[in-house]
Amino acid sequence: MAKTIKDILIKNLHTKVNGSLWLESDNGRFFGPGPVELLERIAGTGSISTAAKEMGMSYKKAWGLINALNTQTNTPLVIPQAGGEKGGGSTITSEAIELIKYHRLLRKRFAAFLEKETVRLKH
Amino acid sequence: MAKTIKDILIKNLHTKVNGSLWLESDNGRFFGPGPVELLERIAGTGSISTAAKEMGMSYKKAWGLINALNTQTNTPLVIPQAGGEKGGGSTITSEAIELIKYHRLLRKRFAAFLEKETVRLKH
Repeated sequence: MAKTIKDILIKNLHTKVNGSLWLESDNGRFFGPGPVELLERIAGTGSISTAAKEMGMSYKKAWGLINALNTQTNTPLVIPQAGGEKGGGSTITSEAIELIKYHRLLRKRFAAFLEKETVRLKH
Repeated sequence: MAKTIKDILIKNLHTKVNGSLWLESDNGRFFGPGPVELLERIAGTGSISTAAKEMGMSYKKAWGLINALNTQTNTPLVIPQAGGEKGGGSTITSEAIELIKYHRLLRKRFAAFLEKETVRLKH
């Protein structure tokens, strides 16, 4: 009888199936944990600049992510406060909030998939 | 009523959910499309060196991948031909063949997950 994956892999190494997930379109890859975290932090801090700093990325990089998102959506996701880098008071739109919710559910379903595959390794 | 993801994303950009998948253990990440392709090409060419070349990687890098795999399995996956780099006649074990089969099925299940999520974007 052919060996199963369980017989082949060394036990007790806590082997698991893991992965990453993103959305992509004709415009390229645009939506994954990074952009979502950025939106959440903008909502939390009211500042694109502070959100970027918290994530160790430049203000320019943050705007690059936001612009990449905006090319995919019918309405803007971030409403920047006039005053630019030091302005504060930036907010995210209800569409951005829906995207964050969607992403949370997507990650949950992916986690369930990975868990099921990891259990399968042991049988 | 809150907008759905379908209302938020611009239509006709062929947006889809995509991702990558791997196995990892206490020894790190060790199993994904790259190592599997290497095993398949070793089986096909009988040569670690040729397989590596076909994939644009060095002989050393190929052995690194094989060794990483071997630290996770109860038995070796590749039986190298004595003679080293120019030897030829290298083979993969039945355990490696089972791993390749497992990987194919895993990818199929992942593709089904991604397809389901992509369909969900449109509803």
